[in-house]
Amino acid sequence: MNRKVVSYILGRILLVTAALMVPSLIVALVYGEGWAGSCPFLLTILAASLGGWALSYRRPADMAYYMKEGFVIVALSWIMLSLIGAMPFYISGWIPRYYDAFFETASGFSTTGATILIDIEALPHSLLFWRSFTHAIGGMGILVFALAVMPRTESKEVFVMRAEMPGPTFGKLRSKVRSTARILYLIYLGMTFLLVLLLLAGGMPLFDALIHSFGAAGTGGFSSKAASIAAYNSTYIELVLGFAMLAFGTNFSLYYLILSGRGRQAAKSEELRWYIGIVTAAVAAISLNLLHYYDNIGRTLRDVFFTVSSIVTTTGYSTVDFTHWPLFSRLILLLLMFIGGMAGSTGGGIKISRISLYIKMLVQEIRRSINPNRVLPLRFEGKPLSAPILRQVSNYLIIYATLFTAITLIVAIDVNNFESSFSAVAATFNNIGPGLGLVGPAQNYSFLRPLSKIVLSIGMIMGRLEILPIIVLFSPNTWRKV
Amino acid sequence: MNRKVVSYILGRILLVTAALMVPSLIVALVYGEGWAGSCPFLLTILAASLGGWALSYRRPADMAYYMKEGFVIVALSWIMLSLIGAMPFYISGWIPRYYDAFFETASGFSTTGATILIDIEALPHSLLFWRSFTHAIGGMGILVFALAVMPRTESKEVFVMRAEMPGPTFGKLRSKVRSTARILYLIYLGMTFLLVLLLLAGGMPLFDALIHSFGAAGTGGFSSKAASIAAYNSTYIELVLGFAMLAFGTNFSLYYLILSGRGRQAAKSEELRWYIGIVTAAVAAISLNLLHYYDNIGRTLRDVFFTVSSIVTTTGYSTVDFTHWPLFSRLILLLLMFIGGMAGSTGGGIKISRISLYIKMLVQEIRRSINPNRVLPLRFEGKPLSAPILRQVSNYLIIYATLFTAITLIVAIDVNNFESSFSAVAATFNNIGPGLGLVGPAQNYSFLRPLSKIVLSIGMIMGRLEILPIIVLFSPNTWRKV
Repeated sequence: MNRKVVSYILGRILLVTAALMVPSLIVALVYGEGWAGSCPFLLTILAASLGGWALSYRRPADMAYYMKEGFVIVALSWIMLSLIGAMPFYISGWIPRYYDAFFETASGFSTTGATILIDIEALPHSLLFWRSFTHAIGGMGILVFALAVMPRTESKEVFVMRAEMPGPTFGKLRSKVRSTARILYLIYLGMTFLLVLLLLAGGMPLFDALIHSFGAAGTGGFSSKAASIAAYNSTYIELVLGFAMLAFGTNFSLYYLILSGRGRQAAKSEELRWYIGIVTAAVAAISLNLLHYYDNIGRTLRDVFFTVSSIVTTTGYSTVDFTHWPLFSRLILLLLMFIGGMAGSTGGGIKISRISLYIKMLVQEIRRSINPNRVLPLRFEGKPLSAPILRQVSNYLIIYATLFTAITLIVAIDVNNFESSFSAVAATFNNIGPGLGLVGPAQNYSFLRPLSKIVLSIGMIMGRLEILPIIVLFSPNTWRKV
Repeated sequence: MNRKVVSYILGRILLVTAALMVPSLIVALVYGEGWAGSCPFLLTILAASLGGWALSYRRPADMAYYMKEGFVIVALSWIMLSLIGAMPFYISGWIPRYYDAFFETASGFSTTGATILIDIEALPHSLLFWRSFTHAIGGMGILVFALAVMPRTESKEVFVMRAEMPGPTFGKLRSKVRSTARILYLIYLGMTFLLVLLLLAGGMPLFDALIHSFGAAGTGGFSSKAASIAAYNSTYIELVLGFAMLAFGTNFSLYYLILSGRGRQAAKSEELRWYIGIVTAAVAAISLNLLHYYDNIGRTLRDVFFTVSSIVTTTGYSTVDFTHWPLFSRLILLLLMFIGGMAGSTGGGIKISRISLYIKMLVQEIRRSINPNRVLPLRFEGKPLSAPILRQVSNYLIIYATLFTAITLIVAIDVNNFESSFSAVAATFNNIGPGLGLVGPAQNYSFLRPLSKIVLSIGMIMGRLEILPIIVLFSPNTWRKV
């Protein structure tokens, strides 16, 4: 373990974090929040800059690092980021307990959107802005961002990128990590900007448009309104956001293909077809199930489409309290929480690509038992998959299920209701936000005990980083001297 | 697909089934139930004999069959068995709807023990006997039994045995299937007989001792009392049954080792250590969680030990209504439902051997990400496991999870309560019996709609046969001409 390079990079990330807080400070000044509004940010920026400088003022001679260091850097950065990012909430006194502030910030960076705030609308603009800005930062990955703007070191970024990127990697990552990251960032920023314009066109105030664009772009889901998107009561805004969330839940490399004139190749994407198929099937199944609950088919489709889009992309905005839908519909939503967005998108969950591979493995195993000698190799996006990749994908399910169970057991000590505690874990581990029952869209996570909040916070970061980095960080093997 | 050999063997199974109904007929005569008691059995025996004779009076010239036929024979036999076995309940009028009688019988043969009966104690002795006798038959597998007593055909029994035996197979099955089956049957009968004696010694009437020995031997759980084992209110009986259930949830090949003087080898069994570890950990965790709910530690341990033993072995007897325990304890029980007994036992669930392999895969995957070049091959019971075996074991989890989800969605249309419908599926698919909430130990499955009952019935048979045979039966590929 090259500890020097780990702390050096952590230091650089701290400096980037300090810079990323400046916009919130500006918001505090613009809205005239005075000393009370700007002081929390000033202090945090000062602390992050000092810490960052102390860790990184001397570039280590040996900058070599590998997969293990990549995992540790990613895991430590995200925990550090959430601890630092929580400071403005805590210093300002708006969230008086540090573990609550940590929960809210981890929820932001991990693009979960689960909140412990009861009276959201009472918060000053600067804090609301920072809260939502963490979604925008977390969406594309702070480390990839930092690497894209940092001066060139060794070309080991691939180890960091692989650890931070959501979704399984089926081919070699493009060798030019830095330039790829820049292109993806430009697409991300462009789409976010476009969404702001579309929301403004629908009559949403600028501040709200920024907040909800950040939330949709990172598939996070923090809103500046307690009633979430229902507060605007506008079909236009619901449609724009519904499609925008789906767009941010799509693999960004497809946009890259389209921009580089290979739109036909993008349209052939197998994962995209699964994605569209799953969304369509879910909307149809829930709408049918709700036929007796609504008197208006248009309204049904509007609510169901928005909810499905919000849940499958793991955003978590709401226009309706789906906790009161019948169990069949609630279960479909729960299922969507586990499925999540496409690989390489800002969405969480197990990811469409893995889910489609699981189904293919299932079909292949059944074929094998009928005709053991006539089984074709598994293909995805037209390419045959190697045994190590398949092993990794199926082992992911085992790791996922084990951790999910462990977290659910801990939360169950607090919440004596199966649906609430199960969905609380599903909604945080998969980075959605609102769950069902006691943690439904009209509720929040404030009533949980500190232990549950801390475990769920770590769970949200785990979910965002696809588990392994956090496990590697806490594994004694990692720190053993060879 | 050699259809002739399939129907020939089904015919032989029908004849064996007819013979296995004779004891219940004798019970009807002993208890003087007259025409009303014996007629349902006489008619069923007659129908099964005629059908069996019609299907098997001519031995097909080509007796060759392979894995595919093995799966189809096993799947069809178990469905047929449940349909035939339901007739006495239906003809007698005690269960007026055929799908209810099918549910009760599938629950019996699959050793689940889930009941749709509301007033169990009202049933005549002959039906109560038959209901529990199906556990004894289902426990060790009707087909292996039939093969053990049938005249020698080709030595293809291995395909049937592999399809019917619970748990993954890690080595080649012993070549002498027939003699192995006989030895295992003798052990099974011996242990059941011993249990009857022990229960008689505790003051249980002979009839009840038989019923509960069948239920424990098959890890089924049907009782002749509505209050299950709580009706006897005896520490002795609870302890005897508690340990007996654990004994029947143990891999029978360990007893074979002990009987052939290789007890030291049996004690080294890795799966046995996992089993003991899981039971001990579960008893400790639940007891700690219940400290505030009981005023007496002895009583706590007694209830918890019995419940854990009953659930992990997938028997389903109860001495306490664990639905009112706190959620943490309920979740541990739910977890035990999924884990199940040891491979090669009469218990259901995913099986201890698979669970321990999943944990090993998880640990290995984490090690691999830390030191990709220093990963040792996975071993179980001292032997390294091949890649195809590992693939099969991890694909089983995918198949399992997919079917579990599908069945839960169907049941959710009926039951608007997450815990109840989730646990109803967990308790039937894993062959336990009582679940939580509306299907808890003090409740029953009678309130479900026909669709749910039929789906859960198929689910119970699927669970007993470890899914694949039923899928192969319903797969169009199986019936396609090559």
